[in-house]
Amino acid sequence: MMRYEAMTSFMVMDIVREASRYPNAVHFEIGQPDLQPSPNVCEAFYQAIASHRFSYTESFGLYELREKISHHYLCTYNVKIAPERILLTPGSSGAFLIAYALALKSNGKLGLTDPSYPCYKNFAHFLNIQPIAFNVDKSEAYQLHPDQLRTQEIDALQISSPANPTGNIYTSERLQSLNQYCIEHGISFISDELYHGLVYDGLANTALEFNDNAYVINGFSKYFCMPGARLGWIIVPEYQIRSAEVIAQNLFICPPTLSQYAALFAFDYEYLANVRVEFAKRRDFLYQELSNIFEVENKPQGAFYLWANVSKYCDDSQKFAHKMLQEIQVASAPGIDFGNNQTDKYLRFAYTRNIEEMADGVLRIKRWL
Amino acid sequence: MMRYEAMTSFMVMDIVREASRYPNAVHFEIGQPDLQPSPNVCEAFYQAIASHRFSYTESFGLYELREKISHHYLCTYNVKIAPERILLTPGSSGAFLIAYALALKSNGKLGLTDPSYPCYKNFAHFLNIQPIAFNVDKSEAYQLHPDQLRTQEIDALQISSPANPTGNIYTSERLQSLNQYCIEHGISFISDELYHGLVYDGLANTALEFNDNAYVINGFSKYFCMPGARLGWIIVPEYQIRSAEVIAQNLFICPPTLSQYAALFAFDYEYLANVRVEFAKRRDFLYQELSNIFEVENKPQGAFYLWANVSKYCDDSQKFAHKMLQEIQVASAPGIDFGNNQTDKYLRFAYTRNIEEMADGVLRIKRWL
Repeated sequence: MMRYEAMTSFMVMDIVREASRYPNAVHFEIGQPDLQPSPNVCEAFYQAIASHRFSYTESFGLYELREKISHHYLCTYNVKIAPERILLTPGSSGAFLIAYALALKSNGKLGLTDPSYPCYKNFAHFLNIQPIAFNVDKSEAYQLHPDQLRTQEIDALQISSPANPTGNIYTSERLQSLNQYCIEHGISFISDELYHGLVYDGLANTALEFNDNAYVINGFSKYFCMPGARLGWIIVPEYQIRSAEVIAQNLFICPPTLSQYAALFAFDYEYLANVRVEFAKRRDFLYQELSNIFEVENKPQGAFYLWANVSKYCDDSQKFAHKMLQEIQVASAPGIDFGNNQTDKYLRFAYTRNIEEMADGVLRIKRWL
Repeated sequence: MMRYEAMTSFMVMDIVREASRYPNAVHFEIGQPDLQPSPNVCEAFYQAIASHRFSYTESFGLYELREKISHHYLCTYNVKIAPERILLTPGSSGAFLIAYALALKSNGKLGLTDPSYPCYKNFAHFLNIQPIAFNVDKSEAYQLHPDQLRTQEIDALQISSPANPTGNIYTSERLQSLNQYCIEHGISFISDELYHGLVYDGLANTALEFNDNAYVINGFSKYFCMPGARLGWIIVPEYQIRSAEVIAQNLFICPPTLSQYAALFAFDYEYLANVRVEFAKRRDFLYQELSNIFEVENKPQGAFYLWANVSKYCDDSQKFAHKMLQEIQVASAPGIDFGNNQTDKYLRFAYTRNIEEMADGVLRIKRWL
């Protein structure tokens, strides 16, 4: 079998395209912020062009930016990460290719939760890695429990917190116990922390607080509002720095240069605080509204997604989503994009548009049902 | 074995870093143009920022840009390629990941020439594909002959023309006969055409003239002088469009957005003609000068590299390159980065700096030897 035959379409991207055909669509499907990056970032983009920053950079990315990220870990989590361990990548997507290649052999086994970000399993298929699903549900607030790992052997574990599509955040105790289990059993820990910063209740810990050899992935696409810049990063264990570099040199040459120069100004915490406040308001609005229509089992604590059980209206949420798009032009992501664990009962709603637009969408849904 | 253990460092990137420590170094190692992109491209970058183009695009990239590339094939090669078959990628590097995944199973066999671009074999190792080397040398002007393919079974063939590191161009007859062989034997043909446009003698044909199912890779990093923009493209066979999209959605989400908007203005043929004239002058200068010092077996016809046999001065060109960098601060790429076929006798010199700087380098070499 060709590896792409095992891969599934990233449905959200297909739905984004379908929804774009309706000029009056309300967009709950889109997994990117509609807010602009900090004005300092925009200014830095202009400056970078004026300075003719059109060449390759080092494969690892600008050292100065890696220092800024290092400082971000110190002031956000109080963990010291040498800039040498931080590798800039073409989007956090590029970071997953590196993490999986560093942590897993061909035919190796990658544990992931069901539901989870659909590309995890597809990165695995692309690299001839076997994805092993562990079901999570409302009973544990969508957090994996270490005991579940005893049921199947794995070589690496992939989790995300805040999680896509559920918006849950791992408690520090749970994140610690999972890391402890992985350390004891020689399992690589891969932590997708792309939605850090977009945290409305509680705290998001970095896996590095509990496991210095965790692979931590983050980027500028969500909290920093620069999705099109295609710039992410990965923190690798000390002993993997050179191997990570060899992979990055060959696979990417380097991440986009202008984006790197602009991202030097992305750690504008005052601006970012406003981004968080705006998304917190939207979360509160959409949670309240959709809880009255569907069953929302857990209030999302972070990211910008809400996982709604729509099974009282249908047997098949994908058909429901299609009908909703065609009949009232409200776009959402069908649950089956995110796994097989009862996902045909769910839709993912992204609160990536302003409250006025969301209110219009909610009203259409209410009238329609 | 971990897949990265089979991969080799992309040495040129290491040498670029080493050479950057010497402020007075003469740079013959760098595989990117020092010329700026067209002023229209720079202006388009400004406009894209002013218009807040910070979101994702479709995974395939902007349709308007795919149309421009389609038009480029029509007016450059007189071949009609539907925009739907053109997929924009994060650098041409991203295009190789797609081509190899579409053409080769895990454990499949990829034929490539020795010497050739070092990342080909490393992309293969990354994807558990077996690289099969076919030696090429001056006797056939560094072109692979179809008869060589009879000696080993392969599933796909990767060639580049103009070639890195030798600067040779496949004649239209040879490119046709290779494609014919591959079509007859069910071998996928992958054509790296990244240096098209930088052609000083003869003509570079696209493989699509001879094989409608060839995977053709190109990008904006060389001729278009936008290496840091990380934007490439791949043309896939009609029947592979959807599979290519599934891979791109999952692996990349989309290519850098600002780069796409800027590249809409990259087909500025008047400006590009000047780029070609400048590199042609540099080629003539460096070929004449280095032919008097080393043995340059074939005058390069394209790209911006010159493959020099330095064996009359040393047994090991890598040691020679290191000594040359340390003692007279002249940087070059050691041949062994490009394969195992007598490559320890060669250095690759890039003519990516102006003639004045190159003349300084040549003078240093002459005095030193």
